[in-house]
Amino acid sequence: MIVKIPQPGISYKITVGHGLLPSVGEMIASTAATPPRKAALVTNRRVYGLYGDIVEAGVKAAGIDIFPVLIPDGEKGKSFRVLQAVLNSFSEHSISRTDAVIALGGGVVGDLAGVAASLHLRGVPYYQVPTTLLAMIDSSVGGKTGINSPYGKNLIGSFYQPNAVIADIGALATLPKREITAGFMEAVKQAALSGTPMLERTAELSEHYRKLGREMFNDNVLSVPATDLILENIRFKTSVVRSDERESVVETGSRSRKTLNFGHTYGHALEKATQYRYLKHGEAVGWGLLFAATLSKKLEFLASDELNLLNDVVRGFGRLPDISNIPINSILDSVLHDKKVIDGDIQWILLNGIGKPVIVSGRQVPGKMLEQTHRQITASR
Amino acid sequence: MIVKIPQPGISYKITVGHGLLPSVGEMIASTAATPPRKAALVTNRRVYGLYGDIVEAGVKAAGIDIFPVLIPDGEKGKSFRVLQAVLNSFSEHSISRTDAVIALGGGVVGDLAGVAASLHLRGVPYYQVPTTLLAMIDSSVGGKTGINSPYGKNLIGSFYQPNAVIADIGALATLPKREITAGFMEAVKQAALSGTPMLERTAELSEHYRKLGREMFNDNVLSVPATDLILENIRFKTSVVRSDERESVVETGSRSRKTLNFGHTYGHALEKATQYRYLKHGEAVGWGLLFAATLSKKLEFLASDELNLLNDVVRGFGRLPDISNIPINSILDSVLHDKKVIDGDIQWILLNGIGKPVIVSGRQVPGKMLEQTHRQITASR
Repeated sequence: MIVKIPQPGISYKITVGHGLLPSVGEMIASTAATPPRKAALVTNRRVYGLYGDIVEAGVKAAGIDIFPVLIPDGEKGKSFRVLQAVLNSFSEHSISRTDAVIALGGGVVGDLAGVAASLHLRGVPYYQVPTTLLAMIDSSVGGKTGINSPYGKNLIGSFYQPNAVIADIGALATLPKREITAGFMEAVKQAALSGTPMLERTAELSEHYRKLGREMFNDNVLSVPATDLILENIRFKTSVVRSDERESVVETGSRSRKTLNFGHTYGHALEKATQYRYLKHGEAVGWGLLFAATLSKKLEFLASDELNLLNDVVRGFGRLPDISNIPINSILDSVLHDKKVIDGDIQWILLNGIGKPVIVSGRQVPGKMLEQTHRQITASR
Repeated sequence: MIVKIPQPGISYKITVGHGLLPSVGEMIASTAATPPRKAALVTNRRVYGLYGDIVEAGVKAAGIDIFPVLIPDGEKGKSFRVLQAVLNSFSEHSISRTDAVIALGGGVVGDLAGVAASLHLRGVPYYQVPTTLLAMIDSSVGGKTGINSPYGKNLIGSFYQPNAVIADIGALATLPKREITAGFMEAVKQAALSGTPMLERTAELSEHYRKLGREMFNDNVLSVPATDLILENIRFKTSVVRSDERESVVETGSRSRKTLNFGHTYGHALEKATQYRYLKHGEAVGWGLLFAATLSKKLEFLASDELNLLNDVVRGFGRLPDISNIPINSILDSVLHDKKVIDGDIQWILLNGIGKPVIVSGRQVPGKMLEQTHRQITASR
């Protein structure tokens, strides 16, 4: 017999703006079908120190009990051990299917809290409150959750959509500069996938940022271009996710979710070759963008002026850490063990012009060309 | 902004019949969109000893590499530690998103393999090959996966549908008798929820089984009534799952997936009060059915003749282990910590007549009546 299970569409609200953190509780109370009695606030010590009080006060004022669940900062927060501790904490506090999990922080907090929320009682309501640029434009959107395993990054996870995303731009003013540069790299990636108009708007924002620094996020008026670009990024990402939520293995068109891995094959390899300690994820993606664009040019997919524009925008958002001392062999070995390997074959996301991603089989790219590309991007700094 | 993610319906094939185990490989190869190169065979030592060779030979003949992943037998197989080991094994063997996970065994194997398949690379194709009656009619259908935590059973898991279910009736002939009795209890549960015709067909099968014993499963002809009833159970369960896949918290009608917990509130409490060691899950459910039916009668929902019919069918499939020595307080304490507690209130699934489940708030049931019901069912044995 054949079983058919209809899946109703999922719909949720993303709110971007200033001064939203005090209203998180109110927004949750008005979103939930059954008002939650309790909320688990998953965050790390640093973010809890900055925003814990303000979020907790608002949640309590909305009639919801709240308790913090603190996880380690950085990638070590995304471990199986931490996941187990977080799940135990949900059970200890009897978080029910009508209660709430709030992820307050960057990508690590969102990814870990998302896995935990998807697994506790087979799924409890989950709210993303991203406080980093990367999380606002990328990881909080699209429903990918994940933790790391001894075998690689994000190998364990689920597709689990939040009930709402609440992004307070003001939180970006306290971000370390490296984090901001790293976050903008995902914005450059999305702009390059979207087309020249978005890439040019991103270039304009980089000039704005060079003049004002992160202070621009603190000001309701000055931050307008940044808010607009963040919204444009979310809109772009959701449009891709909408057409291919589960990143179909067979989908290889320009609207495949796989195209969002532009810059990520080489980026992940860099992170792995340096044991995830030297580079922030966004910084590695920045190098990955330079790599994929240069490789696209070598394969005669991308014109010189397009490559130059992309290079300028990447470098316009700040300095990426030097990678010329990382042995090329360790990087290329890691490329071959990327999880995007299908049928033993790596797939490169390249650009056949700005806004025109193509998925190219690794078999079509000579190993020598990968080496040349690596040398070229590290030499040109 | 509002994000909408359309979810395509899920569809998969359930095959029930004789002599299917050698064809599992072929059936997987013909089901998969991209033919798998590798399969992880999740099972336990006992089942692997009985059917490992036959399944592996067929999978290899279909051109798919296969490696066993053995998990401990019984509920201790459903632990976080075992889940981690299984996930590591998938990574070690580079199971990709086009490969396959095969769950060969009973509910424990299916539940654990399902969680692992849903989490590895955010979901890999997963095939259920149930070898117990309980798994064939219940746990392999509906997409609930789960492991236990220190806080309770199945507290961690996901909703993850298999790509196909392949149930070889012949495997039931090697099942210990206790397992068969336990499995039939879920069939009685579903029949009681469905209506008098199905409950009467279930009563007839119990007579057939009393005469022939488990040998009936071994014979292509004698097993026809059992095969029919298994199909009817699968059909019934999928019809409930179809209308309420995620067991909506707010849904309280007679088609809510929650109604499948008929007999389970008291059943889970019995299991918990005896540390999951004394009773098989189905046996506990058998007692739970007697309890819920008797309670339904006390609340004047169920007529005497309906209660008697249900009691007869439950007792017709074999003896349930004695529970009269389990302290009533430990059972009732466990009831209050069941995961089906919503808003601090337990929900009882009762019968307002055979085939007419109702969801009743625990607040409407006096504690004294629970005690009386317990005494009544244990005394009447």
